[in-house]
Amino acid sequence: MKVYLWSVGKAHESYVKEGIEEFTKRISHYFPVEWRIFPAAKQKSSFSENETKKIEASVLLNALQNDDILIALDEKGKQWHSEELSNFIQKCANQSSQNIIFLIGGAYGLHETIIKRANFTWSLSKLVFPHQLVRLILAEQIYRACTILRNEKYHHS
Amino acid sequence: MKVYLWSVGKAHESYVKEGIEEFTKRISHYFPVEWRIFPAAKQKSSFSENETKKIEASVLLNALQNDDILIALDEKGKQWHSEELSNFIQKCANQSSQNIIFLIGGAYGLHETIIKRANFTWSLSKLVFPHQLVRLILAEQIYRACTILRNEKYHHS
Repeated sequence: MKVYLWSVGKAHESYVKEGIEEFTKRISHYFPVEWRIFPAAKQKSSFSENETKKIEASVLLNALQNDDILIALDEKGKQWHSEELSNFIQKCANQSSQNIIFLIGGAYGLHETIIKRANFTWSLSKLVFPHQLVRLILAEQIYRACTILRNEKYHHS
Repeated sequence: MKVYLWSVGKAHESYVKEGIEEFTKRISHYFPVEWRIFPAAKQKSSFSENETKKIEASVLLNALQNDDILIALDEKGKQWHSEELSNFIQKCANQSSQNIIFLIGGAYGLHETIIKRANFTWSLSKLVFPHQLVRLILAEQIYRACTILRNEKYHHS
């Protein structure tokens, strides 16, 4: 199983880059892992937020394979304990899933067509975090989940 | 009113340092703000986790003034929406509070005596985050709260 981290927006900003790279490297000791950054839809003043999200969604839907497990990060989703994320990843691995994709939306979030396609919609917190910080939190949580699967010390350190 | 960010542990690690410094600088445009890092209690094999927390708590309780507003970050606390954090800070400012202190515990968390002293016990998420990342999340959220108070664009950007 390969872990994909998909994100709509710009390259990693410097204040999160070192942490994202470190935790991504650590994930790679458990699963193959890859970031894919999709450019945000070009802003036109005539476009509503929903239209922008829809354009971004069509690119994302095109890039998805039928059997990809998609976890959409969205504030309207359900919160997980770190252990629940870990269990979900284990379940996907047990079912011989090819790809598990964690998707962070663009400036306006994810369009409803993507939310409908998602196997799970995940909210990190009641708090609203900036997109770039979500990338760092996500990488750390997936690494943490891997250590929980192996019953390693990190989670309780 | 002055905002204090108290943390038990080591100096900011490099992967969060730039972000913490940037968001702390931004907070300073709204309130005086200062980090205070308390060294963790020295580990002795004869000490239980609870004893370590108790030693750290006694230092923290000593450093607190009677009228300090203390927000203890603890996973057993209550979650806030970003707007609720903003409202809390506004309320403290309205009541002419001198100091508002956000406290992140050490490796084993905060001792019950500190939790009892706290005016509010705040959980960031169901997820468990590493101590250093909590510092970055906290600084960003307080900055976000300040922009919400002033109805500035950042929160919805």
